[in-house]
Amino acid sequence: MRPVAILGIGQTIIDEQWEKSLRDIAAEAVIQALHDAGRESADGVFVGNMLSGIINSQTNLGPLVADWAGLRGGDAVKVEAACASGAAAFRSGLMAVASGELESVIVVGVEKMTDRTPHEVTAALATAADADYEADMGVSFVGLNALVMRRYMHEYGWKHADFAPFAINAHANAVHNPYARLRHKITLEDFERSAMIATPINLLDASPIGDGAAAVYLVPAASIASGTRILVAGSASATDTIAIHDRHEALFLTAAYQSTREAYRQAGVGPENIDVFELHDAFTIMSALSLEACGFAESGRGVQLGLEGLITPTGRIPVCTRGGLKARGHPVGATGVYQIVEVTQQLRGECGETQVPEARIGMAQNIGGSGATILTHILKRG
Amino acid sequence: MRPVAILGIGQTIIDEQWEKSLRDIAAEAVIQALHDAGRESADGVFVGNMLSGIINSQTNLGPLVADWAGLRGGDAVKVEAACASGAAAFRSGLMAVASGELESVIVVGVEKMTDRTPHEVTAALATAADADYEADMGVSFVGLNALVMRRYMHEYGWKHADFAPFAINAHANAVHNPYARLRHKITLEDFERSAMIATPINLLDASPIGDGAAAVYLVPAASIASGTRILVAGSASATDTIAIHDRHEALFLTAAYQSTREAYRQAGVGPENIDVFELHDAFTIMSALSLEACGFAESGRGVQLGLEGLITPTGRIPVCTRGGLKARGHPVGATGVYQIVEVTQQLRGECGETQVPEARIGMAQNIGGSGATILTHILKRG
Repeated sequence: MRPVAILGIGQTIIDEQWEKSLRDIAAEAVIQALHDAGRESADGVFVGNMLSGIINSQTNLGPLVADWAGLRGGDAVKVEAACASGAAAFRSGLMAVASGELESVIVVGVEKMTDRTPHEVTAALATAADADYEADMGVSFVGLNALVMRRYMHEYGWKHADFAPFAINAHANAVHNPYARLRHKITLEDFERSAMIATPINLLDASPIGDGAAAVYLVPAASIASGTRILVAGSASATDTIAIHDRHEALFLTAAYQSTREAYRQAGVGPENIDVFELHDAFTIMSALSLEACGFAESGRGVQLGLEGLITPTGRIPVCTRGGLKARGHPVGATGVYQIVEVTQQLRGECGETQVPEARIGMAQNIGGSGATILTHILKRG
Repeated sequence: MRPVAILGIGQTIIDEQWEKSLRDIAAEAVIQALHDAGRESADGVFVGNMLSGIINSQTNLGPLVADWAGLRGGDAVKVEAACASGAAAFRSGLMAVASGELESVIVVGVEKMTDRTPHEVTAALATAADADYEADMGVSFVGLNALVMRRYMHEYGWKHADFAPFAINAHANAVHNPYARLRHKITLEDFERSAMIATPINLLDASPIGDGAAAVYLVPAASIASGTRILVAGSASATDTIAIHDRHEALFLTAAYQSTREAYRQAGVGPENIDVFELHDAFTIMSALSLEACGFAESGRGVQLGLEGLITPTGRIPVCTRGGLKARGHPVGATGVYQIVEVTQQLRGECGETQVPEARIGMAQNIGGSGATILTHILKRG
């Protein structure tokens, strides 16, 4: 394996982009990443996407996106791992360059979800659960997360308002991100009175969907000058059961623990070295579980980090510095690439008001299903 | 890149498997491949599948299949490239081993299509066409191929019956394949009087769908003894436009030409060295176009190879030796892995009545869409 670096990044705003097609949105991010990299072509295109077959009646996004972005001809494929599709596509593109098979790769995560009704989107998202043993029983994806959150509150004695800091921090940071979907602050009072979706998850515990795309351009690290490179120092993927009831422990993200431990090993770091962490806050409960599985808090204590103010850009472990899934938005198959783009922005020092001071090592973690697939990537400046 | 070998293979019958779930079928092929390889685990699982989100309401097949087959924990991801999903997953698994990232990989192609009505399946398959510019205009996938076939007949002066040898050969070979869906011979008379689907494509020009899975086990070639290894000597992927009307030439598979030329280069061979060729005969017209783009016939002359009897197991360029898509069956996302399994069987000398004498070098070609994604793999005994 040869080391790989991120040479360029691109992203679109996350919104209801009714005037643009799926391919338009993807190509916009790809072309930005090409410009940012100073390149005109790429040997391969890896598309992270979850729902194009169900929602957009379009499979085979590889050639669709490659063609529309002016990259027709080479390798082009879609990689899917539910809401972890973005990071899964990134890891596939990474291996293509690391193997020596390709010299340059575009990874683009894209999702266009708002053309359908909320009911249709909810049904589409439920395909990330176990179709035979969860979804067919009538439980939605938010319903599954609500069961986990309720159990967590019962087991460890937290109350609902204790999860508020995750949402408040995400919204506060999104104000300064021009690509974010929800650019307004929220207060504890807003959080407490927001509409219930699936007890105990209310509207401000949950992330909004959206239409958007993010892209990165990968090259062999040795092909560019050292010093200010953004290196992929760790990449790991781990899986668990799809159905939550099949797990030994519903409140511990085993796949997060495993993939993070492996990524730490590859990068030669530990949780104490991570300057910024873009985690997968699809619901506030997932923020708590991620922080625990990744070694930033003991089991049942993840919520404490928020309450103590340690997750803000100037805190001990800044998370969701560009708004996270909660406020930047969660175009599901694109999210994992947004996270990589945002960590890259932090390591480059391009984050303005929410810049983490002297960020040198950053981590991105993307989760598919209720913890079924978890990919962890560590980026380093160097 | 380190060389990679196929250590084990597995496959299920292709049929209407209503008594089994998607995960059952996939796990059956995976477990066969593990047994055949003499292994109990694998570092990664790469699933080739096109339609599980639309037809089975299930995304994230990576962990679903890994868990059900007893391989929970490691890398597991779905790769999709429409009907080329199987070969695309194979190529991703190949790169994971070639890169040194993983030491062993299971690639499994799976599709379960017969739980839905023919109307629903036709709509699902149309997602392989361009949603905005082809499918939304009302043209089905067989309709697109019919337009190409009609143009080919007009341009080169062939009549419909001239395509019969492709179907007759496929059915004759499937008789001897216990995993094939349609194990009966057909005659020229059957071909001529079969029901019209989309002029000029009739029922016997077209391949049947089905439920099925095929799997291979990949390892670094250096980890096993040489002599009887099945080596992956060439792997290439190329893409074209999704929409046929966007191409310079509708009757030439540019992506087949490009990926085959690159695979030949890697393997150090030419068309004259290929002993057996599992091509993508979704429709008889595709057999002709593939043979032409891969260098076995001049443009417009592919049909001639069938008429001259050169495509049978003892002919100059045997194709569809286990029945091809036409008679083995076409569980779309699984097909590319069936092809690799079948070429492996030929190189191992396990094909009985349809064994190609002294087969040493074999090629498999998998096509997504009407030529949008084409992957070519060359396997070698050695």
